[in-house]
Amino acid sequence: MPMLNFQNPVRFDFGSVKKLPEVLQRQNIQRPFLVTDHGLLDSGLLERVTDVLNDLSQATIYDGTPGNPTEEAVNEALASYHAEECDGVVCIGGGSPMDLGKAVALLAVSGGLLSQYDPLQGGNKLVKGVAPLIAIPTTAGTGSEASLGFVISMSDGRKLTFANPKFLPKMAICDPEMTLGLPPLLTAATGMDAITHCIEAVLASPVNPPADGIGLDGLWRGWQHLRRAVNDGNDRTARWEMMMASTEGALAFVKGLGAVHSMSHAAGRIKELRLHHGTLNAVILPTVLRFNESACASKYPRLRQAMGLSPDADLASEVEQMNADIGLPSGLAAMGLSEELIDDMVPHAVADMATMTNPKPINAEDFSELFRLAM
Amino acid sequence: MPMLNFQNPVRFDFGSVKKLPEVLQRQNIQRPFLVTDHGLLDSGLLERVTDVLNDLSQATIYDGTPGNPTEEAVNEALASYHAEECDGVVCIGGGSPMDLGKAVALLAVSGGLLSQYDPLQGGNKLVKGVAPLIAIPTTAGTGSEASLGFVISMSDGRKLTFANPKFLPKMAICDPEMTLGLPPLLTAATGMDAITHCIEAVLASPVNPPADGIGLDGLWRGWQHLRRAVNDGNDRTARWEMMMASTEGALAFVKGLGAVHSMSHAAGRIKELRLHHGTLNAVILPTVLRFNESACASKYPRLRQAMGLSPDADLASEVEQMNADIGLPSGLAAMGLSEELIDDMVPHAVADMATMTNPKPINAEDFSELFRLAM
Repeated sequence: MPMLNFQNPVRFDFGSVKKLPEVLQRQNIQRPFLVTDHGLLDSGLLERVTDVLNDLSQATIYDGTPGNPTEEAVNEALASYHAEECDGVVCIGGGSPMDLGKAVALLAVSGGLLSQYDPLQGGNKLVKGVAPLIAIPTTAGTGSEASLGFVISMSDGRKLTFANPKFLPKMAICDPEMTLGLPPLLTAATGMDAITHCIEAVLASPVNPPADGIGLDGLWRGWQHLRRAVNDGNDRTARWEMMMASTEGALAFVKGLGAVHSMSHAAGRIKELRLHHGTLNAVILPTVLRFNESACASKYPRLRQAMGLSPDADLASEVEQMNADIGLPSGLAAMGLSEELIDDMVPHAVADMATMTNPKPINAEDFSELFRLAM
Repeated sequence: MPMLNFQNPVRFDFGSVKKLPEVLQRQNIQRPFLVTDHGLLDSGLLERVTDVLNDLSQATIYDGTPGNPTEEAVNEALASYHAEECDGVVCIGGGSPMDLGKAVALLAVSGGLLSQYDPLQGGNKLVKGVAPLIAIPTTAGTGSEASLGFVISMSDGRKLTFANPKFLPKMAICDPEMTLGLPPLLTAATGMDAITHCIEAVLASPVNPPADGIGLDGLWRGWQHLRRAVNDGNDRTARWEMMMASTEGALAFVKGLGAVHSMSHAAGRIKELRLHHGTLNAVILPTVLRFNESACASKYPRLRQAMGLSPDADLASEVEQMNADIGLPSGLAAMGLSEELIDDMVPHAVADMATMTNPKPINAEDFSELFRLAM
């Protein structure tokens, strides 16, 4: 069974979810806390995991993860974790259960309030430990199973990114079979999330050629297989390749990300709209590609090559065409965002961690203009 | 300062060697055992390292590393390590001091005979621990600073590969300035070692797309910059890129290698000839590329793309042309090997660890023929 080991151990193969009991045993988890959401429960996917557990009575299921996980939900889940005397977290789902589960694993051992761990405020010094964490992705996009970060919508209205090597799952189980039933629109949105990770990571300013190589390989796989995965959800090759692109996206973004993510996070925190992170990335990506090009022109030919495009192809237009082909909205306005919200979003985009690694310096005025262009 | 962290932490930048005292302190090494060779001593490169140490009187220098390090030399160095009550190993040099230093670090803590740690004989179970190990490469080829393997010519005539995550240096310090004085022929031979690592790793049979991506990125950098580094040893950009290609080669070959290395190891163990490992790889590579093509045809277009070649270019011929351009021999015969030695080398190639991951099954008869073709 393919085993990757660049950030954390990743068991990657069809059927790998059957290895969960063995993994729990090795991590010495007797009372697992399974973090998931209603969608997973309704679709029957959760059952595919619980079916392989030896003793389900020892497991606690938390299925209340909201779309963009909130601090309130983290605290609710944490109370249940403690009440049931759990000793490890298993995240099952897309990015939201992963993020929420990581927050629970942190607070379960390190205690205190989530806000105190804000890495931009020196919070990493306070991380005492993290409960053993296993990640089983059911979408191919977030890559959170191989990433040391997680994002939570805080009660004070901010959307905070937490990042620490201790937040890496002890083991990721990537089973492309878990994504076979994913509906076309969710396949498209999460797939573009993976592709955005690969592109933004390659373009991010820090120097890290191995991460560039991984991002380009992920982009090569993702760009070739996303239309196939959307058109035929049972295309096993396309599902395998999209899940690999997703994992590679996360391995690549150890370098950092860029303005697409700053803007997506700023828009994603508007709770009433419940905007999907991957869809936001897809819709914002072309505008930021046009903005950044002058600062990293030497990297654009490599992106074109990885995507199998001609040397004179316009990257932004190609992404717009992809979005159209796979049924994603053409702009932020079509997602329900209006220009009046821009002034509210801009300071959040400026303060976002991803802004620091955007290849081109970017200020509030730029963000304002980019939001307008992306409408 | 760029910091890579895919296998072990790698401080990668011009001038990074100045960080050695800080690194020793963090690893709690008070009495470092510096492993190097006469060439490093004579060239004045060793001084560049000892000059930055706070208290040279606490350090022991072992400069007796032979070209292809032997078990005898390992034992000699180990005796000195113990006699001087050292508490950590710093390898300074090309692949040979790295390999020897890793063996000393293993035996210093785990004890016993080196042969008992043969991984193909279950030796990894016996590894109790390894002394803290720092690696400072002075060539751009082996990548040993970021690899969990080392190769020793055993007293019984075998050339054994040892591999264990514990053999990864605790920290690698990659300072391209250390390679500025490297003579053209050594630049060529070590550079082709790095390029062979990238190519063989990408072609190796295990499934590991992130490693493929890193290997292709290393190949892209190495192929573009090797002629430049050979032609002008002071070309800082070329030196930086070649050192990165070398590190990436090692990160890529976590997948495994192939028949080029099986054959190089088999030839390199003939002590009287003192054949350079990188030169052997360079000379053998075209023959193995022709042999393997039918088994991994889908990967050859990606190699061509990374090397900037036209889609119909013949990889083997391009490597032959590169070897000629940078002054490497055209075949094994030109290196002093004769056909009479083939029967002696073949069983060693068959038994080599790299044979298991060659993309095309390969037996004694094939190796015999490949040695003949590579003459």
